[in-house]
Amino acid sequence: MSDPSALDAVVDDLVVANHILAQQGVLDAWGHVSVRHPKNPDRYLLSRSRAPALVMAGDIMEFDLDSNPIDAKGRGLFLERFIHGETYRARPDVNAVVHSHSPAVIPFSVTDQPLRAILHNAAFLAEGCGCFDVRDAGLTQGLLITTNRQGAALARALGQRSVALIRGHGNLVVGEDIQRATHRALYTEINARQLAVTLSFGRPIKYLEPDEAQDPKRLADAWEVWKAAVEDVSRP
Amino acid sequence: MSDPSALDAVVDDLVVANHILAQQGVLDAWGHVSVRHPKNPDRYLLSRSRAPALVMAGDIMEFDLDSNPIDAKGRGLFLERFIHGETYRARPDVNAVVHSHSPAVIPFSVTDQPLRAILHNAAFLAEGCGCFDVRDAGLTQGLLITTNRQGAALARALGQRSVALIRGHGNLVVGEDIQRATHRALYTEINARQLAVTLSFGRPIKYLEPDEAQDPKRLADAWEVWKAAVEDVSRP
Amino acid sequence: MSDPSALDAVVDDLVVANHILAQQGVLDAWGHVSVRHPKNPDRYLLSRSRAPALVMAGDIMEFDLDSNPIDAKGRGLFLERFIHGETYRARPDVNAVVHSHSPAVIPFSVTDQPLRAILHNAAFLAEGCGCFDVRDAGLTQGLLITTNRQGAALARALGQRSVALIRGHGNLVVGEDIQRATHRALYTEINARQLAVTLSFGRPIKYLEPDEAQDPKRLADAWEVWKAAVEDVSRP
Amino acid sequence: MSDPSALDAVVDDLVVANHILAQQGVLDAWGHVSVRHPKNPDRYLLSRSRAPALVMAGDIMEFDLDSNPIDAKGRGLFLERFIHGETYRARPDVNAVVHSHSPAVIPFSVTDQPLRAILHNAAFLAEGCGCFDVRDAGLTQGLLITTNRQGAALARALGQRSVALIRGHGNLVVGEDIQRATHRALYTEINARQLAVTLSFGRPIKYLEPDEAQDPKRLADAWEVWKAAVEDVSRP
Repeated sequence: MSDPSALDAVVDDLVVANHILAQQGVLDAWGHVSVRHPKNPDRYLLSRSRAPALVMAGDIMEFDLDSNPIDAKGRGLFLERFIHGETYRARPDVNAVVHSHSPAVIPFSVTDQPLRAILHNAAFLAEGCGCFDVRDAGLTQGLLITTNRQGAALARALGQRSVALIRGHGNLVVGEDIQRATHRALYTEINARQLAVTLSFGRPIKYLEPDEAQDPKRLADAWEVWKAAVEDVSRP
Repeated sequence: MSDPSALDAVVDDLVVANHILAQQGVLDAWGHVSVRHPKNPDRYLLSRSRAPALVMAGDIMEFDLDSNPIDAKGRGLFLERFIHGETYRARPDVNAVVHSHSPAVIPFSVTDQPLRAILHNAAFLAEGCGCFDVRDAGLTQGLLITTNRQGAALARALGQRSVALIRGHGNLVVGEDIQRATHRALYTEINARQLAVTLSFGRPIKYLEPDEAQDPKRLADAWEVWKAAVEDVSRP
Repeated sequence: MSDPSALDAVVDDLVVANHILAQQGVLDAWGHVSVRHPKNPDRYLLSRSRAPALVMAGDIMEFDLDSNPIDAKGRGLFLERFIHGETYRARPDVNAVVHSHSPAVIPFSVTDQPLRAILHNAAFLAEGCGCFDVRDAGLTQGLLITTNRQGAALARALGQRSVALIRGHGNLVVGEDIQRATHRALYTEINARQLAVTLSFGRPIKYLEPDEAQDPKRLADAWEVWKAAVEDVSRP
Repeated sequence: MSDPSALDAVVDDLVVANHILAQQGVLDAWGHVSVRHPKNPDRYLLSRSRAPALVMAGDIMEFDLDSNPIDAKGRGLFLERFIHGETYRARPDVNAVVHSHSPAVIPFSVTDQPLRAILHNAAFLAEGCGCFDVRDAGLTQGLLITTNRQGAALARALGQRSVALIRGHGNLVVGEDIQRATHRALYTEINARQLAVTLSFGRPIKYLEPDEAQDPKRLADAWEVWKAAVEDVSRP
């Protein structure tokens, strides 16, 4: 990137996204967020192996789409980085990826109960979720996704959607930018919580219909307040 | 208003209401709170487009009942301000309006399970809730309410009640003053949470009967403690 | 009390109990806690009308068992103080009373689902709860308990137990001292939450049997940590 | 231990584990965490009787496997320390023990609903949980475990597993080190919460299969962020 300050801004947003999703309870000690490199679409940016709430700008590393680090400098790598590389390879429209163990999503991942949109803020779920079981791609280390082959299989399960559930593990959420991916990761969790309660009523449910879905408005306003809530933490 | 400090006090309460309902989890990054102008019943006060937790006195703008800004000064406007204008037009007794995505309310908005009062503090729900689906008024932008026609249809669904559910979106809560509207927005959420658990028992429920309902006592005491909880944030 | 510092210690504990139960989510803006006067069993101590989280030593007032204030000094009184006076009158063994809108208790108060002990820390519920509907004692102001006649009827429903549920309103919790009453108010809430989940399994439940109940150990240790959590607030 | 600073590090980790599990809501005012003495396998380290959130290095005491204190110095002892001594005696592979009243676990402890792993982070539950009712070992003080005989019976119910549920009381969680025991105590709670929701769907559940289980990766990263969250508290 010819303008280093532009890259700095991208890195800053990536750090903030880590902190926001940790504070909101979507990311536990293990999830991760990445962005595609703004100047080189065959590269992505992801933290060294570290809990999201603690990630700082200096932790951000660069990877190629095979998920090889460009300059590791001895830093630890996320075992599951292959999720990111294969998703960027399969989806040129995607510029940000979240992998989390989003707690309210797990019940949907281990049953055949579909996770569908009941809330307008989760309109991206109106198209449904991909469903992935790493067992179908061959186990390597438990339910972890630790190879490009497994990552590619997950990306196929995602298809053209925004979210794929990963059985007994969590989910994969993508967006055309970091703000959308963050919003979708958060509202996948919120919609899942609300749908679980709705299902308990045992009554017919009016899900969002495709023509009722739309891109969320005023994401910059949401980003402003989410960032304000973590800003004491996000300063290095 | 001839006494500018009186208007300042109204604006201060409006700012505090935004912060209270954000802190209590009723308002997310997108909801909004308004008050009717204390001197001009054909006007109302509402923040510029901004997340409720961050609203400050300088963000408050004045609108007419068609939801045109009086003096926008280039500030961004809430797309859904028409909810407020049309509610004030239809309900001369209403002086404060909350529109939220109150999380526990969503399950009731997408099923035919009635949201009724089981808690004395939610006595305003003893009269039931209006139910609104923007689809019935014609979609414009997803499930958002972006025109006076849609706002007026929602106000009709509200009728003379305190609360209307908005399908897949949230609710509309009104009160004769900002303290009552804030109280009702909060206790609609709390009553919804408690009713969901109650329904899970699968046993007959003793709802509040109309002669058991009453206006809540000591709202000023509640306001004092809610305000104290946000006061570090509410200072500009 | 001949030793004023001893009374001060009682008042301090009463203030702390208010703060603890507010912080733990048992008391909202309206509940109240009282203690019997340590030197005069025909008197009790209760805050002026104020949200529990904000109560300070200077707010504590003295009442007789008819719930007349001894020296009001113009301070506002809780409308429902009659709950306290009549409970102290009916139960000479009781020296502390909590009235709350404990959220998880409400579902049990509006159905015939019994609230029984499943957790050893809620062993005081092994004896069951009294159940009270103010309607049966005659309504005065909604579901509020605003007369000695209603308070006495509630005390009769309590009987010799530790807890009575109040339909659509909350509960009454008593103890031989402020630490036990605080503990019971908290663990009534916790046991209610856990029992609601347990009931959702639809399987037979092993409730605590009477010979398994016992007085909780190390209440002073619990009090120490609960107090530490509120101490910044509890300092006047 | 010849190197006193090595023992200090073990004690520091034990203090931090107490604070982490208290902050995460696994330990209330009463639970406890211990470690086997790093140099003497017939001894273990456990706090004096104190709420976990307040435990400091100076509170840590040494016990033999009969749970006699080596040098009590007049400090109060946990009534239930026998859980620890008998577990270390029965399980030479275990070097850390947590006893909690983990709230989401209680519903499973009072019904025959099995608590099994649905989340990869709770893979240690793939082997199932031991189930213990102190009644079967003879009651002494309510449902408390206050003798070596009761502690040994609990250790037998645990068997070679990582977790045993204790009816109406809580659970016992063990690990080969303090980080694993802390992780397992936390994820037993989280998996229990998620399984309760999953069960409410009334659909077939894909539990973790034994060949899908694995030891969690990057526990040091998790420990770093959990510790950071309590560090202001954990400094004596």
